[in-house]
Amino acid sequence: MKEKLYIIKIGGALIDDQELLDQFLEQFSEIKEKKILVHGGGKLATTLADKLGVEQKMINGRRITDKDTLDIVSMVYAGGINKNIVAKLQKKKCKAIGFSGADANLIKAKKREHPEIDFGFVGDITQKSVNKKLISKLIKLDLVPVFSAITHDKKGNLFNTNADTIASVLAQALSLKYEVELLYCFDKEGVLEDVDNPKSVIKSVTEEEFSVLKEAGKLHKGILPKLENALGAVKNNVDKVFLIKETQLKNHIENHHGGTEICL
Amino acid sequence: MKEKLYIIKIGGALIDDQELLDQFLEQFSEIKEKKILVHGGGKLATTLADKLGVEQKMINGRRITDKDTLDIVSMVYAGGINKNIVAKLQKKKCKAIGFSGADANLIKAKKREHPEIDFGFVGDITQKSVNKKLISKLIKLDLVPVFSAITHDKKGNLFNTNADTIASVLAQALSLKYEVELLYCFDKEGVLEDVDNPKSVIKSVTEEEFSVLKEAGKLHKGILPKLENALGAVKNNVDKVFLIKETQLKNHIENHHGGTEICL
Repeated sequence: MKEKLYIIKIGGALIDDQELLDQFLEQFSEIKEKKILVHGGGKLATTLADKLGVEQKMINGRRITDKDTLDIVSMVYAGGINKNIVAKLQKKKCKAIGFSGADANLIKAKKREHPEIDFGFVGDITQKSVNKKLISKLIKLDLVPVFSAITHDKKGNLFNTNADTIASVLAQALSLKYEVELLYCFDKEGVLEDVDNPKSVIKSVTEEEFSVLKEAGKLHKGILPKLENALGAVKNNVDKVFLIKETQLKNHIENHHGGTEICL
Repeated sequence: MKEKLYIIKIGGALIDDQELLDQFLEQFSEIKEKKILVHGGGKLATTLADKLGVEQKMINGRRITDKDTLDIVSMVYAGGINKNIVAKLQKKKCKAIGFSGADANLIKAKKREHPEIDFGFVGDITQKSVNKKLISKLIKLDLVPVFSAITHDKKGNLFNTNADTIASVLAQALSLKYEVELLYCFDKEGVLEDVDNPKSVIKSVTEEEFSVLKEAGKLHKGILPKLENALGAVKNNVDKVFLIKETQLKNHIENHHGGTEICL
């Protein structure tokens, strides 16, 4: 039987709220099974870009990562945020070790190709991008990898990569060796039938139901990439995938309760 | 017989010069033996602090690391600089893996204590601070650790720590297991009898000679902490310690030529 591995993704709103982040990391550090944390960026990078007068470039409504923006996000994500999370987890006796995808070539990306738009320093990844052999070795040393959303191309360039996608791709790659449960933690109770009613959690969403919800306009903007990446994981052998509320991590793991399960 | 391990420290001037840095990393990546890189900060942190209006605080002429400055140096050192060096080394097929001291609790520091001055987030370390068991395991996986000058206290705080000291302390701790050669790389040919004459390299400096040079005012400011840390290493069982010119790394390693050796 494969060993259990939790891959848990947290996003911006949580990272911006030190108290909430601390509560979450407490729950995370209490998980007894093997685990990996993937974190997004929060408002810090945008605030810093504003202060430095680095404009956010958009082409056809799509965000572009130019060199100045890349320099900011690699500092903020892989430095500031990542090392602060690691230090907080170390305080809680969790053997956290922080990474970007460049470190030990753990996640190798390809510059995004698009017929019309040059996205700049944005890296796309698949499960083949993941150095799963080495990640397994590090996990075996009882280390807890903490990934920032920065990757590289092995040609000397760093890239900005979507953190939801990193979590999904890690889960897919490591499912060959582990029984992976992928948890997208965010500020809602799960996928909601009515976005204003936290009690309207949909218990499970299949690919077909996802299409229906999407066409009915019931999925608010932030949840779409999570669901797409969650479905990608389910379709690629990840054992279990949930969207849960950040404060419910412990409850979910101990009581198998709450959130929305994404199924085939 | 113990296995050879190079611990190599580079500083600010090199990091600020992309072309020179690239040449150096090429030479570094060609070293066949086990190796660790330790890097300082360069002007980036100061430039960023200026742009953000974060003033450098001084008390009695000593630099203080307040919270804002710590946030900047942890972003710049552990994020921007560290990940760029790692990505560049990965391009050169060197299995670099970037760390702060918080990662896997590799270097645990103590907040600097001083009877009169509160230095803020400055961490002091000794060879006991080093998680040498885990660093050895990582080196055995053929990984090449790249350390930024950020440590932590295992109470959730990050610290600014002198990079020369990190290199010395790592060398001391790992000397129990490896035959360590510690190289301080900088922009001079070595310790110079006459600072304006690159040909006046002093071949070796003992502790006694160091005191004489220091009292004669022959040691310019930047070289003092290097020599003090170098002497600390020699006195604590590090096999060989040199100060060499950055561009001479390959020559030094292949031909045992150049630089100043620090001896007991």
